[in-house]
This record gives sequence, C-alpha cells and structure tokens, in this order.
Amino acid sequence: MTLSLQPGQTSIRCKAAVAWKAGAPLSIEDVDVELPKKGEVLVRIVASGVCHTDAFTLSGDDPEGVFPSILGHEGGGIVEMVGEGVTSVAVGDHVIPLYTAECRECKFCQSGKTNLCQAVRETQGKGLMPDGTSRFSQNGKPIYHYMGCSTFSEYTVLPEISLAKVNKTAPLEEVCLLGCGVTTGMGAVLNTAKVQPGDSVAIFGLGGIGLSAIIGAKMAGAGRIIGVDINTSKFELAKQLGATDTINPKDFEQSITDVIIDMTDGGVDFSFECIGNVDVMRQALECCHKGWGESVIIGVAGAGQEISTRPFQLVTGRVWRGTAFGGVKGRTELPGIVEQYLAGDFDLHPFITHTMSLGQINDAFDLMHEGKSIRSVVHLQQGD
Amino acid sequence: MTLSLQPGQTSIRCKAAVAWKAGAPLSIEDVDVELPKKGEVLVRIVASGVCHTDAFTLSGDDPEGVFPSILGHEGGGIVEMVGEGVTSVAVGDHVIPLYTAECRECKFCQSGKTNLCQAVRETQGKGLMPDGTSRFSQNGKPIYHYMGCSTFSEYTVLPEISLAKVNKTAPLEEVCLLGCGVTTGMGAVLNTAKVQPGDSVAIFGLGGIGLSAIIGAKMAGAGRIIGVDINTSKFELAKQLGATDTINPKDFEQSITDVIIDMTDGGVDFSFECIGNVDVMRQALECCHKGWGESVIIGVAGAGQEISTRPFQLVTGRVWRGTAFGGVKGRTELPGIVEQYLAGDFDLHPFITHTMSLGQINDAFDLMHEGKSIRSVVHLQQGD
Repeated sequence: MTLSLQPGQTSIRCKAAVAWKAGAPLSIEDVDVELPKKGEVLVRIVASGVCHTDAFTLSGDDPEGVFPSILGHEGGGIVEMVGEGVTSVAVGDHVIPLYTAECRECKFCQSGKTNLCQAVRETQGKGLMPDGTSRFSQNGKPIYHYMGCSTFSEYTVLPEISLAKVNKTAPLEEVCLLGCGVTTGMGAVLNTAKVQPGDSVAIFGLGGIGLSAIIGAKMAGAGRIIGVDINTSKFELAKQLGATDTINPKDFEQSITDVIIDMTDGGVDFSFECIGNVDVMRQALECCHKGWGESVIIGVAGAGQEISTRPFQLVTGRVWRGTAFGGVKGRTELPGIVEQYLAGDFDLHPFITHTMSLGQINDAFDLMHEGKSIRSVVHLQQGD
Repeated sequence: MTLSLQPGQTSIRCKAAVAWKAGAPLSIEDVDVELPKKGEVLVRIVASGVCHTDAFTLSGDDPEGVFPSILGHEGGGIVEMVGEGVTSVAVGDHVIPLYTAECRECKFCQSGKTNLCQAVRETQGKGLMPDGTSRFSQNGKPIYHYMGCSTFSEYTVLPEISLAKVNKTAPLEEVCLLGCGVTTGMGAVLNTAKVQPGDSVAIFGLGGIGLSAIIGAKMAGAGRIIGVDINTSKFELAKQLGATDTINPKDFEQSITDVIIDMTDGGVDFSFECIGNVDVMRQALECCHKGWGESVIIGVAGAGQEISTRPFQLVTGRVWRGTAFGGVKGRTELPGIVEQYLAGDFDLHPFITHTMSLGQINDAFDLMHEGKSIRSVVHLQQGD
C-alpha cells in the first residue's frame, strides 16, 4: 500500500482505536491524521502490542492520562512520508516508535549516563507533538497523542527523534514488542543491572516484562534465575525461557524475602520488580544479598504510592535503582537489539499468545486483565 | 611505657571509661584486661576520638547496645602483646582498631564487592570477642566490648583481623580519626560514590562525617560542593575545607530539595546524608539529578525508622545506596589512607577542635551534644 495524495491535501483519513474516556472500551473510528510538519514523520503502523501501561492509562489511574486519545506505544511500522528537514529516516524505512526519544543534543543525551532524553518530554506528557498541537482529529476536534506513539492507529505521526530505524527483514509483527516490554525487561538486566555470568537473580512478576527479564538473565549467563508470581500458569513458560526456579509466595508461611534468602545462601545478587506493586518492591530489595545486592524497579506504581525500607538495608550494601525502557537509547541501541533477534540470540514467539485485528482490540485488554495473555499483538494492516 | 608482666600473670589492670548503663555519664574505673588469646592482640590505646555513634549507644537508643561496656571505636594505639598464631602485627606496631574487620576469607571478603566482613560480626554485635567471652572485667564481673574496639580504655584486646597496621611516623593522636569518621566520609565520596572531576555534590550534615565528605569531594575534583546544615557555625570550616556553597534549609520557604535543584540546573550528581535523619535521607535522594543522580546514606537512623520515596524517583534514574566505613577494607586500604595523610593529601587538624584526658571524657559528649565540637580527641597516655 502506497500513500497517494491529491495536490493540496493536508491530512489523510484512517481507522484508529480511540479512547474517548477513562474506563470505557476503545472505539474504532475514522480519524483524520495531519501530514507531518518540520522534523516529523508519518508512519503506517503494521502491528502493535497491547501493554499494561495502555490499560493503566485507560483505567483513569494515570495522572498524565488525557482523553480523547489514541493509545498504543509498542508498535512497528513503515515510514510513509517525512516532513521538512528529516534526514535520519526515509520513505519505506522500517521503524519502531520510541516513547523515549533520543535527540542526541539535550543535557540528558549528552551526558552519556541515561536514556531519558527530555527533548519532547513536556509536550509528549500532554498528549501533543513538540509544537504543542495534535495531528489527530475527528470532525475538526482534536484527539490527543499517547506516549508520543499512538500505535493503535493505521497511521501516526512522530518526531524524527522518536523513531528507531531497524532492519527491514525483521517481521514487524514480532519486533514491535521491542518497542516496550521485551526491551524493558531485557535491558533492565543487561544494561541497567549489568548481570554477570554466574550471578543469582530474582524476578518478581512473570508478565511480558518479567519473562523478558528472564531472557536477559539467561543471555547474561546468570547461574540462578528465580521467577516469582502468584499466577502459577506463568511458570511453564518462565522455565522454558530460562528460569531455574519458580516460586509462588502463597506456598510459604515465611515471607518471600526470607524464602529467597534461604534459597540463595544470603540473598540474590540482583532482583527485578516487574509488577508496579510497592510492597513487592520492598521485598525485592530486601531479598538482595547484604554487601552488594542490587534491586531494580521496572514496574510503574500507582499515583502517589511510596516505597519504604529501613535505611539499614542500604547502609549494609544493598542498592536500590530503577529503569525505564531498559536503559536503552532507542535510536542508537534498538537497531542492534533487532539484529540480535535476527541472529537468534533470543526469541519473541513465546510472548505472542494472541493476535487480532484492530477491530478486536478490546479483546486484548480483556485477555490481559484475565491474566490469559502474555502479549496480544494487533495487526493493523490485515486488510492489505 | 613497656608492659612488664609477672610469671603466670593473665591480666593487667588499667584505667577505662565504663558505661555502666544507658543515659548515665561514663565513669573512670580500674578494670582488668585479660591477656590476648589465640588470634588476639593487646593494644595500648594512645588516643581516641569521640563519635556520635558512641553517644547514640550511650543514649540507650541503639538496639545492639549492651551494658556495662567500654565504648570508643575511633582509636589509635600500639601493639603491646600478641596471642598465639598472630602473624600480621607484632609488638611495637602502630595500629588503628577496625570495627569492620577484614578476615580475607569469608564470602564477603572473597567477593571483592564489599568491605562488610562478617567473620566476627555476630559476637562483636553482642559485645564479645569471637570466642564468645569478654576480656574486660571488674572484680570478676565482665564488662562488654563495644564495636569490637573499646578504645576508651588504656588497654584493649582485639582480633588480629580487626587491626590496620599503619606507618609509625603518623601521629596516633590525629590518625585515630581515620578509625571512623574521616574515613567514612571520605570513603563514601571516593569509594562508594566514586565522584568524578567536575561533578556536583550535596552534603547534608556538616559534622565530622559531612566535613570529611567535603574533603573527599575536594580530593575527587568535584566542581560544586554544597554543604547543608541548620547549624551555621559549621559553615566557615566547611568552606575552608572545600565547600563552594553552604546553605541553611531554614533560610528558604521552598523545600531544600527544590532549592538545590534550582541551584544546580536539575539536581546534583551525588548527595550524601551524614546525619541519620530519615526525612533528610529522602531530601538527599530527591535533590539528585534525574537520569543519573546517586544518593548515599552514611548516617545511622534510629531503630525502626524507615525511608520512603515515590518509586518514580528511582525509575527516572536516581540511585539510592548506603555505605559503612566508607566502603574501605580496613587492613588493606586504611594504611594507604594514612600514607595519603602523611603525603599532605588532606589535613586532620581542622577536625580536632578539642583534646582532653580520659578523666575529662564526659566533656567530649557534652561538647558534641551542644554542637560545639567537630571532634574531641581523648589522649589516654597523658601520664606517660
């Protein structure tokens, strides 16, 4: 499918799943997408995963959530048109949208110490493009962007700095998962924690992020990989991906912290919280080994919630840190992760438990809430 | 003074400041010190600093505090006698007692990742030598050791693994401060945080530890060193030692976190909590720069107190860690720090605001509580 435009045309019309308000199902609508302005790119989305963060925002609990909006932030697509001055991608390039941009010019990018580029952070948080306006509308009324991506639309517009150009031979229906969950979990282990061969690891929560963390731990050569979840249906896949132990906190009278300390002769070298539960974040810290254990928070907690511990836990050598998008600099590093995938370093099939068309997208949310899916991937171009 | 013993003699008698019970002044007493057993060393203490931790235990708030005991853990002395099998120190060696031993054999020492040797931890926490008994007594009734050191006694006994052998030309009346406070503050900056040239640093609490952290930050080449205290009488010395800014939280309507974020265009690269106040620990974390700022807890909080923050603080790249004895491996690294002192890399004079005899030791606690001293150093051998 190639975009053919009439002279003077300033927008295209396509299907998108619109979140009209918090708590309601998404609605498939015809929406108008304005053509890309300076520094912007029009992308045809081929596939998009459905992530817990989409559900979190849809629930209304996300303090940054604005409506009406087009959700979705774990996509893969093809560049259809570039705005003035765009040089890093061209029509036909395969791209993964980045909710964490990489401008390579801001203080954060220049620091070399973080992937948290702030170039478009402020407008993105308001559901707008960097110029403070939206490209989406219906009957002239604006619809907001989401996480700078809005991948639940056949077409979306992003800043050039929010696109990772990836190998065209990679199936977008699979590598779309590298746009969020899989990269986040793997990156937390490999980039943020820098797990070393032989290290022991505990992973709390075996959804898409936790399972990706298991893959990362296996790639790092961890000696012991302990998966923790109260949903034991996740255990088989966890073991298949590399978990050496899977434990259900409900099976023990002791605290899960004590169980893991006993299992590992003093605690794990690294732990990862992949849920967003502040009580579990504390358990994850406190099951780390005295002297050197590090706990990495990946999950996103509800607004206003706080983590706590005794400072003694830190004074005796434990480290508490967090990670976003696995510490991965999207434009610089994501293409390499796609290459690793193509080289067979890790597999994405096990994550994709369900696929569906855009029209069935609400099923993806239901499956997630019922704990039945790891990832549902929406194929937006099924009619092609 | 050389120790002359009668045949068959199994103990010596000397003066010590005894803490009979929580909350009471120390009492100068004649105590019996049993001669060193296998692996143990008798040390004549020449000088000892008086530290907040001594006061904390004396107050009764320390859950590990036992009485009667001989406090003091920041000393310098001379080896007077060695027990069976002792090879690493000999009579006449100058030593600094270590409340964090270094056995070089336990899992912790072998890890290479921490200075928290656990070899004598359990008995030391109970006020006993590794064989489960005390070497101190009066009229046959045992008096407990303290932090494995008990430097408020003319003579004390320590395990060989709890002694750092240092250059004899270093004045023990000064380098005794390297037994705790100065090493803790400097080490937190240089070893634990690894501050780099040009980094910005905030130091909360300008007592002995905080001032030592300033020295460490200056040695590291930090570009901005912000000292924070509500006792402005500390500011002059802080500036003399290297602070570029000194601020009193009471001078601002904004939170001190916001003040520091404004001063530093987004927050500091590193912060250090040198007080033991859990609210300040939170401020110290939250004034760190998004993306990479790290906060190090040095202060010891009261029993049962907890630190809290929103996990978002960590997910957006801040790191929360702690340190004990500045991460310094006592036997291996402390001798080198003494050499740095002798080479003029840093000065200890500014810390020693008061000196006194053992008989005046209670004055040291009064001066500390009144905020009038940085460090009081007790000279135990003034009668020589």
